[in-house]
Amino acid sequence: MILAKVVGTVVSTTINDGIKGPRYLLVEKTDQHGNRKGDFIVALDPLGVGYDEMVMVTEGSPSRETPLTVNKPVDALIVGIIDMIDEDDKVVYRK
Amino acid sequence: MILAKVVGTVVSTTINDGIKGPRYLLVEKTDQHGNRKGDFIVALDPLGVGYDEMVMVTEGSPSRETPLTVNKPVDALIVGIIDMIDEDDKVVYRK
Amino acid sequence: MILAKVVGTVVSTTINDGIKGPRYLLVEKTDQHGNRKGDFIVALDPLGVGYDEMVMVTEGSPSRETPLTVNKPVDALIVGIIDMIDEDDKVVYRK
Amino acid sequence: MILAKVVGTVVSTTINDGIKGPRYLLVEKTDQHGNRKGDFIVALDPLGVGYDEMVMVTEGSPSRETPLTVNKPVDALIVGIIDMIDEDDKVVYRK
Amino acid sequence: MILAKVVGTVVSTTINDGIKGPRYLLVEKTDQHGNRKGDFIVALDPLGVGYDEMVMVTEGSPSRETPLTVNKPVDALIVGIIDMIDEDDKVVYRK
Repeated sequence: MILAKVVGTVVSTTINDGIKGPRYLLVEKTDQHGNRKGDFIVALDPLGVGYDEMVMVTEGSPSRETPLTVNKPVDALIVGIIDMIDEDDKVVYRK
Repeated sequence: MILAKVVGTVVSTTINDGIKGPRYLLVEKTDQHGNRKGDFIVALDPLGVGYDEMVMVTEGSPSRETPLTVNKPVDALIVGIIDMIDEDDKVVYRK
Repeated sequence: MILAKVVGTVVSTTINDGIKGPRYLLVEKTDQHGNRKGDFIVALDPLGVGYDEMVMVTEGSPSRETPLTVNKPVDALIVGIIDMIDEDDKVVYRK
Repeated sequence: MILAKVVGTVVSTTINDGIKGPRYLLVEKTDQHGNRKGDFIVALDPLGVGYDEMVMVTEGSPSRETPLTVNKPVDALIVGIIDMIDEDDKVVYRK
Repeated sequence: MILAKVVGTVVSTTINDGIKGPRYLLVEKTDQHGNRKGDFIVALDPLGVGYDEMVMVTEGSPSRETPLTVNKPVDALIVGIIDMIDEDDKVVYRK
């Protein structure tokens, strides 16, 4: 999984995904400190994540392994909101 | 998913994909503002997207998760046409 | 899918793929004009493609989605021979 | 599979993975000598690996192929703790 | 598939792969001439390949498509030993 922050929303009305409900978010990859890297992808958000929250994103086929996304053409899914990260025994990120 | 713009068409008559109907398009990856990045892939288009439209492309295995592409050797699929993108509370792209 | 040209053949007699018939080809990735990029992969060829022909290659799991490759350990498959590509309303490649 | 060292922990309480028990670890990719590369991912740890241990990580769809991760949205899994690596007939890493 | 040479062995006794028998090898990616590229991965070897032999490696999900690896968390598999490669009508590698 990769770390990312929510920076925006992607709206598509002509869409062929068979998904009802969650939004597609623009997320920017971050390091474990929460620093943005300038590298963006579009991820489906089943959790209702807020702006600037740090999340964990699953990519590729495993994105389909939730009740909402099973058999859906989704290749990036927000799976969790990050509360805390420690690295080398120091807390480097806290929500 | 990644963002891209439709820039052309790829025609193949000797083809082994078992797909009837949709065309393969040449798409160029873009940033969230719609700026082209000079990085191209070929994606299947089940939506009938027009030239220069901005789209969302699913890559890899999840490309097969539509009625049209199930059990087909497709690794890049146009899943939606982008209407609007906001980033850091500003609208950065509008169709 | 990516664009590539056939540049050679890869012969392996001690092989564990369960596939009978088609050859593995050395293909070089190209841009949409057919210019070679110096980046090579090995792809299975079920179509009998000739030297220097431009092809479309599917990568990863979807490579297995043909009768020949179903349940086979193949991660790159030639799916079509390219006849023509247009970009920004100009024909940029013709076989 | 890739080689990595465990450098920290990633805590997420709002999470949508359907997994009970194992922790998500922050791992840093290493070369075969155990030198850290500055490239980090988040991987699920079903083995209870300790800080600074060198591990083998499976990425993508195959991460789901254990009893714990079957049908789960996990794209990086620690599959083994490394005891020893030899390269060109010399031992280059030993636990 | 990619080309690689076997350069070493990776030993893991605390391992969660459900596989009995074959070893994990350290392989270094090569070009079609057999020149090593300094880029290493760990691949499962069901063929009993010897040191410095050139092989073809399948990556990702298709690695699971052999009797030995079905439903196993393996993302890189040696599928064949290379006997010969020709490029632009010249033999560039011979075992």
